[in-house]
Order: sequence, then structure tokens, then C-alpha cells
Amino acid sequence: MKDKEFIRGKVPMTKEEIRILSLEKLDLKNAKTFLDIGGGTGSISIEAALRNKDLKVYTIERNEEAVSLIKENMKKFQIENMKVIKEYAPVEDFKENLDRAFIGGSGGNLREIIKWVKKLLKEEGILVINCIILETLHKSLEILKEEGFEEIECAMANIAKMEKLGEGNYFKPLNPTYIISCKRGKFVE
Amino acid sequence: MKDKEFIRGKVPMTKEEIRILSLEKLDLKNAKTFLDIGGGTGSISIEAALRNKDLKVYTIERNEEAVSLIKENMKKFQIENMKVIKEYAPVEDFKENLDRAFIGGSGGNLREIIKWVKKLLKEEGILVINCIILETLHKSLEILKEEGFEEIECAMANIAKMEKLGEGNYFKPLNPTYIISCKRGKFVE
Amino acid sequence: MKDKEFIRGKVPMTKEEIRILSLEKLDLKNAKTFLDIGGGTGSISIEAALRNKDLKVYTIERNEEAVSLIKENMKKFQIENMKVIKEYAPVEDFKENLDRAFIGGSGGNLREIIKWVKKLLKEEGILVINCIILETLHKSLEILKEEGFEEIECAMANIAKMEKLGEGNYFKPLNPTYIISCKRGKFVE
Amino acid sequence: MKDKEFIRGKVPMTKEEIRILSLEKLDLKNAKTFLDIGGGTGSISIEAALRNKDLKVYTIERNEEAVSLIKENMKKFQIENMKVIKEYAPVEDFKENLDRAFIGGSGGNLREIIKWVKKLLKEEGILVINCIILETLHKSLEILKEEGFEEIECAMANIAKMEKLGEGNYFKPLNPTYIISCKRGKFVE
Repeated sequence: MKDKEFIRGKVPMTKEEIRILSLEKLDLKNAKTFLDIGGGTGSISIEAALRNKDLKVYTIERNEEAVSLIKENMKKFQIENMKVIKEYAPVEDFKENLDRAFIGGSGGNLREIIKWVKKLLKEEGILVINCIILETLHKSLEILKEEGFEEIECAMANIAKMEKLGEGNYFKPLNPTYIISCKRGKFVE
Repeated sequence: MKDKEFIRGKVPMTKEEIRILSLEKLDLKNAKTFLDIGGGTGSISIEAALRNKDLKVYTIERNEEAVSLIKENMKKFQIENMKVIKEYAPVEDFKENLDRAFIGGSGGNLREIIKWVKKLLKEEGILVINCIILETLHKSLEILKEEGFEEIECAMANIAKMEKLGEGNYFKPLNPTYIISCKRGKFVE
Repeated sequence: MKDKEFIRGKVPMTKEEIRILSLEKLDLKNAKTFLDIGGGTGSISIEAALRNKDLKVYTIERNEEAVSLIKENMKKFQIENMKVIKEYAPVEDFKENLDRAFIGGSGGNLREIIKWVKKLLKEEGILVINCIILETLHKSLEILKEEGFEEIECAMANIAKMEKLGEGNYFKPLNPTYIISCKRGKFVE
Repeated sequence: MKDKEFIRGKVPMTKEEIRILSLEKLDLKNAKTFLDIGGGTGSISIEAALRNKDLKVYTIERNEEAVSLIKENMKKFQIENMKVIKEYAPVEDFKENLDRAFIGGSGGNLREIIKWVKKLLKEEGILVINCIILETLHKSLEILKEEGFEEIECAMANIAKMEKLGEGNYFKPLNPTYIISCKRGKFVE
């Protein structure tokens, strides 16, 4: 889906190419439940819900303006398989069993959020994290390792989009973005 | 789909991240017929066919070894909505009306292939071209413009994948790849 | 030299990393005369002149505001081995024999400028071209080949600089820039 | 200086573009003494010594094969202002006061090496670190901060070099490299 199709405010939005790479890593066609943490404009959740009509999508977002945008986008795209939770993550009374989770923003609670997600994820469930902040990249990799996540992978995406400049075209760069993906390992007794 | 899931020979394969970005631009969920030109290992076609069970996929590939690989992959993934055509493109007696087309390799016939694709594409049909060669990028943009294609866009993808090195990890770069997408405009009488 | 040391207006300036890579390709320590075409803020010329006190530097720049900036920068850095020529390139009555030339901006006259530079360059003289525009990259490579330049090389530089964001740091990307370098071949009778 | 001018074995060598960016950050023209830690083929030291005839260059390298290569390169380029120390860093009885230091390889002793360099560096002395390993990037930034280094900057360089492929050219990427630079702050009593 093109970025321009989303209703956007001043809330930062995951860009099209990053969104699609992240969604791919989430492998949602084989999932029933998906939690999106730090939903922003909700572009990840919206596209996840639209592409997978049988998926139950939960979006946690604490920012009022962002929540309004998500709801506007849900209306625009007539999304019915998605629920927005206006809270700070972790949300202790959210108990849904998850096939997939995505962290797009952590507001400084990265460790707590990852530990919480680990409890919610099913065996072999997939977690994807997006970040542009170097320290978040480092901490994520460290915490995921400590918490026993498996098949930890990371792609750095330097995407640039062709844009007009004078009579020609140049490549306007997006921010270098890290896309981390991993699996909740098998349960061990 | 991960690259490692494909049976690969020495035939170059579109890498996972590039494949998924290209498939996204093709917007196949809204299409009925898709032609993949220069199929290589067939990874684009295979993933297109797997994700869209109602899509009819045609793959043109002239290289014997590549055709064998494509067929092996079709068997592995039990693909039934895909047909391989062992020919040099353009294939004059291929007359299918197309919703989508992809050029992954042109063997020096870029202009002929684009002109031929233009004749096959339906109104508003989408063409996506992948290239790493600078001259192919330039020629493609030029020819697409001359032939009246619309909404010509291009993304340059510099993707690097985290890999182990000693006790740490570094980012191993893929070749910078250009992903061009455009639309066959409305028919004018 | 850091970008912030230069007096800058609204004129675009070659960024530190690109400037230093370009200067390196110019190999100015082995040169006596250097022409900078499309000087902008003059950062290439200024740094060339400062680092090589015996080098005679000529800067051609047609934009009034840019010329003022160059002169302010010359004053600031007390440059004496540099001359600014306020003209459109090519400047037909400029007849200096050149060891090195740099094209940072061509104002649409790329072919004429390259042909003119070729006449001015000594045997084995070096020409470096910077561009961010795809069409300029393509045309430059094409014209340089046609005009018989040798050892044509090109580096694409995707540089990103660490900047604070919240409590952390991210990498802010510069525009992808192409640095072309080549040699005026040996004179053939 | 071009990479091909160096005598190379199997020892990894800092590539031309990375070397020149690193040398620039070192600002050697305003220095008298320079220490290169983990010299590899010595390309940084050699180019530093060649460009700055009055600079005293010290290279610490523990690998026998690398030390031989450095010495061969010193002979080739007739370097006289450079001394090779075959040791593991930190080298406790090396007591030279330093204007500049470069860490190209740390063999797992990063913290000890940075602390040791800090003791050797003069007030306002510059330290530059090159790395491709993510963990080294992170640790370096952390240690430099803890040790009170100032003006910590970092550039990520994604450089790709044009190379022939069939009848055209593509951009072959170098490994993404981080170039960290910082200053030993003012001495405080």
C-alpha cells in the first residue's frame, strides 16, 4: 500500500518499503493473532488487517493524536478485525495469546515490553522490531539474546526513492532502518 | 519466504528483501494474470503463485538450467497456477492479456521486451523492473517514458544483512538494486 | 575541514565526506593548476587551495550569491592562490593549461563543459565530477567514454551521520552521491 | 592513494574511501605524533606518513604476516618517519605523547586500548576508530562517553564502486563501515 493512502498527521509513519519488509518478516498469512506495539499512525496494523481478513489485530498506542489517526484510518479502510488499545505498553491485563508481535516504538520500556511479549507469544511465535536508533538496535539484540529468542536476524535497509530535481531525478534517502526478526523458541519444561 | 527455501543452482536469484519489495509494487492481490520475464530461479513467480492462488502466472526463461530449477521449485512448493515458457523474450505468439508484468532480466532486448509487454498489458496494468546494472536502469527509465508509461517510480534498495563475524556481527551488503514500477496508462483512441 | 567552518548561505554545499572523497580523487598534491566548475560555496576550491599552497586554483561560478560566498570564504581562510571567475562555463577565453578539473555543477551544459575541459587538460590530467542526479551520472559516463577519457571510475557514496534523537542516536543520511573520476589520456598525434 | 598501490597479502586492508575519510577525521596536518593500533597492511599509517613528512608515525600490529607486509610497504614507499611495533596493544612501555591515534582493530581489548590511548593523548588530541562490527561500534561509543571523550561523532559509510558486469556496470558494495571520531578533552585538575 502506498504511504499516501494513509491519513497522516504529524505522527511519524513507517514508510512503505520498511512496512512491507517488516510485514514480510511477520509472516502473517500463517497467523491468527497479532499485536502491534507503538502503532504510530497504525500503518503496520492497518495493512496487516487488510491483507489478512482472518487475523485478529491489536494495536497498543499511548499517544492521543496517534490513536485518533489510527481510528480514522480504520474507518477509511473499513477495518473490522482490529482493536486499538490506548495504553502504555506493557499492558498487564492484556492476556491474548499471540502468534505474532511487532514493536515499532517502545518509549524507553524496551526490556519490559520484550519480556511481556515473550509471555504472550505462542511457541515459535514471531517478533519483529523496527528501529532507527542505534541504542535501540543494540539493546534489542542484547535483550532478545538474553531472553532466549531464536533465529535472531537483522536487515539494515537504506532505501532511497527517486524524486524530480530540476530536469532530472535524484534518490532521496529514507533514514537507515533496522528490521530485527526472531522467534520465541520452543517451550522447555 | 526465505531465500533458503528455494532450490538454487548457480542461477542468480532475486534476494528475499528485493523480491518482497518487487512483489509489493506488483500489487498482485488485485490481478488475474502475471508474466515474469527472465525468471531466473523463478523465485518471483513462485512466491507470486503461492501467495495468490487465483493468479495465473507465466514465466519466460531462456536458460535451460534455470528452467529446470524453476520446475523443481514448482514441484517443491506444489505450484499449479504457473506455467514456464522456455523461450527468448519477446515471445511473439504469447498473446495473454496481462494485469501485471515483471522484468528481472532482459538479455539485451530491453526495448523490444518493454514494447511487447506494453501491447499485452491491460489498461492500468502494472510493470515492475528490477536491475542492478546502471545502464539498464537508465535505459528502462528512458524507454518507459518514451512508451508513455505512467506513474514511473524507482526505489534504490541498499540492503545489508547481519552476519556473524568473530564474536560479533556485521552487516553484509547486497548489491544496490533498483526497483522500477509504472503503469500502462489509459488507452487513448 | 568541517562543513561548519565555511560561511554558507542558501547555496548548496558539497558535504564534508563527499568533498574529501572528491579531493582525494583529484590527487592535488601532484598538481599545479586546478579548475573548479560550478563552485557553489567554493568549499572544494577553498579546501584545495588551503591544503596545497603552491596550487593555482580557478573557480567558475555564475551565481551572484554563490560568488559572494566564495569571496567571503576566501577572506575568512586568507586564501591567496585562488581566483573566482563569475561566468557561465564553458568560458571561451579561459586558456590556462590544467592539471586537474572538477565539475560540481553544469547547468545543463555538460557536454560542452566536458569537451572544453578536455582541451584545457594536460596529458594524464585528472577530471572529477560529482553528481546526485541520475541523468547527469549517465550522461557524464557516456560523454567521458565518447571523448576518450581513460580509467573512468565511479563510487556511489551513501553516507549517514550520527545525530541525537531523543535519548539515543540515529544515522541521518546524506543524498546518495556519485563521484566520477577519470584521466585525460595520452595525446595521440 | 589507490588500494592497488599497496602490497597486500591475505591481511584485510582498509579500503581507499574509508581510509581517506578516516585520515581526514584525524586532521594529521596539524599533528606531530600519530599512533595506529591494529595496523593491518599499514595502509593508514603508510598514507599518513607519506602525506605528512614531519609526522612521527607508530604502528602497533601483533600479526606476523601483517608486520611483514607493513615493512614491505614501507620499503616500497620509502617511508622513514614510521616505526612498526610488533606487540599486542596496549603496549605498556610505549610512552610517546600523542597528537593523534587510530584504532583499526582491537582484538577484544577495546576498553583497555581506549583507556591507554587516553593516557597517551595530548589535550585536544584526536582519536579515530574504524569498525564494521556492530558490537564494536556500540562498545566504542559507550566507552568513549564513559572515558570523557568529547565531540564524539560517527559517520556510517556505505560505499559502492562501479564495476563492469556483462556490457554494463553495477555498483559493488563495500561493507558498511562506521568511522568514529572524538577528542581527548581539556585536562581538568
